[in-house]
Amino acid sequence: MAVADWDEARGRMLLDPTAVNLNTGSGGPLPRSTFERVTGLRTRLAHAPMDFLLREVPPLLWTARERLAGFLGADPYRLVLTTNVTGAVNLVASSLNLAAPGEILLTDHEYTPMRWCWERMARRLGLELRTFRLPALPAHPGEIVDAAVTAMSPRTRLLSFSHVTATTGLVLPARELCEQARRRGIVTVVDGAHAPAFIGLGLADIPYDFYAGSGHKWLLAPTGVGFLHFDARHKDTLRPTQVSWAYEPPPGSGPPDGRDRFGSTPRLRRLECEGTRDLCPWLAIPESIDFQAELGHDRIRTRRRELADYARQRLIGWQGLEPATPEPAALSGGMVAFRLPGKSGAGTLRQRLWERFRIEAAVSERPDGPLLRVSVNFYTTESEIDRLAEALKELLYEES
Amino acid sequence: MAVADWDEARGRMLLDPTAVNLNTGSGGPLPRSTFERVTGLRTRLAHAPMDFLLREVPPLLWTARERLAGFLGADPYRLVLTTNVTGAVNLVASSLNLAAPGEILLTDHEYTPMRWCWERMARRLGLELRTFRLPALPAHPGEIVDAAVTAMSPRTRLLSFSHVTATTGLVLPARELCEQARRRGIVTVVDGAHAPAFIGLGLADIPYDFYAGSGHKWLLAPTGVGFLHFDARHKDTLRPTQVSWAYEPPPGSGPPDGRDRFGSTPRLRRLECEGTRDLCPWLAIPESIDFQAELGHDRIRTRRRELADYARQRLIGWQGLEPATPEPAALSGGMVAFRLPGKSGAGTLRQRLWERFRIEAAVSERPDGPLLRVSVNFYTTESEIDRLAEALKELLYEES
Repeated sequence: MAVADWDEARGRMLLDPTAVNLNTGSGGPLPRSTFERVTGLRTRLAHAPMDFLLREVPPLLWTARERLAGFLGADPYRLVLTTNVTGAVNLVASSLNLAAPGEILLTDHEYTPMRWCWERMARRLGLELRTFRLPALPAHPGEIVDAAVTAMSPRTRLLSFSHVTATTGLVLPARELCEQARRRGIVTVVDGAHAPAFIGLGLADIPYDFYAGSGHKWLLAPTGVGFLHFDARHKDTLRPTQVSWAYEPPPGSGPPDGRDRFGSTPRLRRLECEGTRDLCPWLAIPESIDFQAELGHDRIRTRRRELADYARQRLIGWQGLEPATPEPAALSGGMVAFRLPGKSGAGTLRQRLWERFRIEAAVSERPDGPLLRVSVNFYTTESEIDRLAEALKELLYEES
Repeated sequence: MAVADWDEARGRMLLDPTAVNLNTGSGGPLPRSTFERVTGLRTRLAHAPMDFLLREVPPLLWTARERLAGFLGADPYRLVLTTNVTGAVNLVASSLNLAAPGEILLTDHEYTPMRWCWERMARRLGLELRTFRLPALPAHPGEIVDAAVTAMSPRTRLLSFSHVTATTGLVLPARELCEQARRRGIVTVVDGAHAPAFIGLGLADIPYDFYAGSGHKWLLAPTGVGFLHFDARHKDTLRPTQVSWAYEPPPGSGPPDGRDRFGSTPRLRRLECEGTRDLCPWLAIPESIDFQAELGHDRIRTRRRELADYARQRLIGWQGLEPATPEPAALSGGMVAFRLPGKSGAGTLRQRLWERFRIEAAVSERPDGPLLRVSVNFYTTESEIDRLAEALKELLYEES
């Protein structure tokens, strides 16, 4: 796709024209078509709530489930829709029973709230929690597998890792990690918050126990889209976080895994129903898939690599910035992180980037200092990355 | 307000012009002003997700909390926003610890999923669950208090009752029931799903332990608005259903009950945060309060009583319909229920009303037969009630 085409694609996005969005990793803006679809559905919900919820939602919900499953390479009958990855991981952590004594193993780059979630589970079950260090700038996925395998022990009951780390955008070799874990009888929970539409997902090829993901980031689906896919061996493992009207199947609901009249199956509905709430974000999933499919998923990923390389080229060495994300295509994508030499904390830097330059980028506090994470997407322009470089020059120069 | 004024008010609502909405009790349509507000907020969320969530939401969230607290006569510092009443009751049921052996006491008119929710808690704690019968057509609130007091025993640990029953629209004397319970050391959880804007609420006058409510019914707030208000003695009782980024307060968050920079307090945020999700329904609460305040809450209630009386007059005795909701103003409001003599089940009747007459009304299955619940609101017209009467005549005649 030529530059002009990407300009045209950018024109189809809702973007604040006064700001530079380099933070799809925290939350993506919406394609106009997705926003129009979700707003149209909500208009119908506002006019006739019960007709909409009772009669219009079910077929739309099943279609959305099937489309998302198809996109992920997953089975729609084992795809629980959630609000986000947090809800999905909590569903697993509040349901699982694992034998104590033993340990839960995490990488040292897991999203902090998810670590807390596993800590709560560890307390409930009398398990310990242990983290292992991911190699800083691996040259090959095998280095990550080696680190994980070295960390596994006969005491390890569960391994949870990010498919793409939120801190640095490092892509982990999910299939190999899950294979190694399964061989040792270790349950795997993959935190795929950043994975859908960031990498090409074929979930059927990964032998995980549970795979959780969010749709409001790289998939560019509305806020309120997440999912949990479970392996067939876990069909009876999960217990709903909330008891709602789907907790006990009504008479005539049919078999637990049969498609029901609510756009789900009794098994899935029991897990995903949380009383009357706005399901429109779920129903608009197909629009976001279609939007990116039309641009071409592979072409989008290629464009993101170009932009990520451009960001590396512009920023590395600049006022002492060091790369924190490896370059190989198997290990990274549209998120590039840099170690910042500045004396300011992450919060201050993030705030200054926004207030003085209207640049939205994530800055996190890591044990070895603040980390700037630049998310690029097909709607990012080279000049926006230039603007970031100039802003950093100014901010870091002041601090040096 | 003259009829013309109610016509004008109806014109400010989003209503399906082809349908008759007699089911505000399940979910209210939206005032145009509320829909425009929530859509405007979502437009901003779609354009600049992080700027919106990080910087624009906090002051709006605190304002919404204060306005809802003011409307309910509650304390904003003890008001947890939830998606709906189901989420609020689940939060209590998954947190509370009560001494076993003992029992949980419910009325026989509680919303079935909430009964399941208490059953799950009972199993967790080794308690029993017992229901007592509400008087069918009480002439005075005292009859309800007598029935409850008779049912209480030294084994009773918790009493949960609907402030307004979902089945019949019966208003329970919440203050007296909670006083009686408190005198006996019984924890009270009021299910106020239908109460906000249905009755004039002064929560400060009711000595409950927990009060849960929904905003998408009579308050005419967007789908996704609910709340849990807790008594000061329970400030350390609740544990979040989900572990999210607010689970552990960040450094510098200040005291647990101080207003924080996120539009909440650390204590409230820990309970209400569930990862990245669409908070816009909460933020639009003030518009729905303003909308009804402008029409006049008392005048709305008076109009609903007129319409409810008209419905009684048109329907009672008609093809054998019998009243299931008492008439006195202290005991009922905008929902009137009728026992149906027909042979068809609740689902079939509801479906026929919709498919043949485009009338949306709730029909529930009760131990003594199906119950038709007619919700009237200021936007209901006498001719819509006439249309229901004609429809029932036809449907029930066919069955007789």
